[in-house]
Amino acid sequence: MQLACNSLCLTERPHMATDVVIGIDIGGTNTAYAVVDRSGTLACESSVPTRGYRSPEEFVAAVSERMRESLKGLGQSVTLRGVGIGAPNANYYNGTIEFAPNLEWKGVIKMAGLFAGHFPVPAAITNDANAAAIGEMLFGGARGMKDFIVITLGTGLGSGIVAGGQLVYGHDGFAGEIGHTIVDPDGRQCGCGRRGCLETYASASGIKRTVFELLATSNLPSELREVAFTGLTAAMVSDAALRGDHLALEAFEHTGRLLGLKLADAVAHTSPEAIFLFGGLANAGELIFKPTQRWMEEYMLNIFKNKVKLLPSGLKDKNVAVLGAAALIWNELKNG
Amino acid sequence: MQLACNSLCLTERPHMATDVVIGIDIGGTNTAYAVVDRSGTLACESSVPTRGYRSPEEFVAAVSERMRESLKGLGQSVTLRGVGIGAPNANYYNGTIEFAPNLEWKGVIKMAGLFAGHFPVPAAITNDANAAAIGEMLFGGARGMKDFIVITLGTGLGSGIVAGGQLVYGHDGFAGEIGHTIVDPDGRQCGCGRRGCLETYASASGIKRTVFELLATSNLPSELREVAFTGLTAAMVSDAALRGDHLALEAFEHTGRLLGLKLADAVAHTSPEAIFLFGGLANAGELIFKPTQRWMEEYMLNIFKNKVKLLPSGLKDKNVAVLGAAALIWNELKNG
Repeated sequence: MQLACNSLCLTERPHMATDVVIGIDIGGTNTAYAVVDRSGTLACESSVPTRGYRSPEEFVAAVSERMRESLKGLGQSVTLRGVGIGAPNANYYNGTIEFAPNLEWKGVIKMAGLFAGHFPVPAAITNDANAAAIGEMLFGGARGMKDFIVITLGTGLGSGIVAGGQLVYGHDGFAGEIGHTIVDPDGRQCGCGRRGCLETYASASGIKRTVFELLATSNLPSELREVAFTGLTAAMVSDAALRGDHLALEAFEHTGRLLGLKLADAVAHTSPEAIFLFGGLANAGELIFKPTQRWMEEYMLNIFKNKVKLLPSGLKDKNVAVLGAAALIWNELKNG
Repeated sequence: MQLACNSLCLTERPHMATDVVIGIDIGGTNTAYAVVDRSGTLACESSVPTRGYRSPEEFVAAVSERMRESLKGLGQSVTLRGVGIGAPNANYYNGTIEFAPNLEWKGVIKMAGLFAGHFPVPAAITNDANAAAIGEMLFGGARGMKDFIVITLGTGLGSGIVAGGQLVYGHDGFAGEIGHTIVDPDGRQCGCGRRGCLETYASASGIKRTVFELLATSNLPSELREVAFTGLTAAMVSDAALRGDHLALEAFEHTGRLLGLKLADAVAHTSPEAIFLFGGLANAGELIFKPTQRWMEEYMLNIFKNKVKLLPSGLKDKNVAVLGAAALIWNELKNG
């Protein structure tokens, strides 16, 4: 809990209230939020548990109360312009969270409307990868770009696609599910109920599954032979690879090959200027970037070759989920 | 050659000149064109050979001369507002045709500029599938839709993607190459130099290859066992299937499965309201629509299931390539 906010970090305009928005990242376990000004500076970063409330209404009431205190701590020098929310299974058009498997609340939750009931300002919601893409466009490495894709490599694989300067929401608000494009229809079981989705290969949990496949299919010696499935993390695979563990390196090669294959497909759809890799597995740096780039070029149609930049997020040291949620509102205000 | 135009078909506005554009479809063998009014009515449909000119400049000069005669035939009752061109490997941003394998002229041809040199009006160019998508949006089944995809199933597989009401051109103008997404990196050789592209399976030539694969791998009796590879056409496969030929039916099933798989991937990218199938193979009707729809639903992420319409083009009886090229200009004029 951090109520005495770092208000001085906000862009100061003497004798004028600074416009701010609240960015909220609703996760399965915790909900993080911050007050964010137009330049992307975060203040009052805080988080509360997402679980343990009897209803979404109670949750929103509790979080809003905390936020009001945060805003009070900033004094009269700020004007709240909106509330931006990033959440799993969020529907931008309807302002809802719909059937999110990792949240306690089932069915359709009118989350944006609930927050708008507590603050007399616009509220908008989108999924975390879309929020990250808007954050990247407004404050990160995609500034000035009109066509790019953000890929988040966490437990799963999320994506946000920007085409012609606009986030692609699609007909129903759910566009940008590159993690659920299919690598192999007879492949690995996915949490979505199907088989062979990209995220079962290219994600923190995907590379772990690849390690165990390699432990079974190859005779490569590896320090990872000492680790149980439950105990293995993507960071351990990364550390082993940095120590030269051949099997761990092979796991990154496999991951990069399949990610590169499907990114080449993604390029054939929207022809982006750059693809940003972000999230836990992207922190492995060259271990994941190098094979992904090489295979993406290998699998890419000749007219696209050597055109598409594969980049780390330009927001690495910030809370991208919260900043992206805030950027959603700044972007709406910018577009009128 | 048809110089005495069907000018009376054009929307008539008494005592006012009717605004028209010229739509041009540059193909490997022939170049078709027509005069098109704002309601999508075609007049003066004609075509000239694409080959046999010493330079693109000579070609454009000859075609423009023919067009001027066509316009003259319509009298002073029309005002030319623009020239829209559909062509293979066309780059919308640059107004160019770039390294088109099926055209005589190599390298980069400034085609839009050449036509603008002959007519004092805006000229724009895009590839035929993109033109078909804009035609579908302005005059066909996609009227009122903001998110849809047009797939042309000809010798190859072309596609035009519309997201948020705008055609997706991508960073370089070449977006929408779903025919070159990869079904199997070790699969069939593609004209693009790679292996396993969707168009090597789902196209008029793709289904022919599938028939020959089935002739080799199965013992199904089939009238197609009497036909040489060179002699087989997609229409023959379609006719055999309609007569109940099991192998031909199986070929449609295979084609629909792989097309459905990659359309499910396409839905995961831009979440369209509808996908339009168009071109030679789409004329097979239910033979191709049914298995494609079934497999697309089978492979689709649950949040998209039963939402995406698979439709025939709403422009079936018209020259879609020419109408789409004209629509490109009408769309620009509409968007200011």
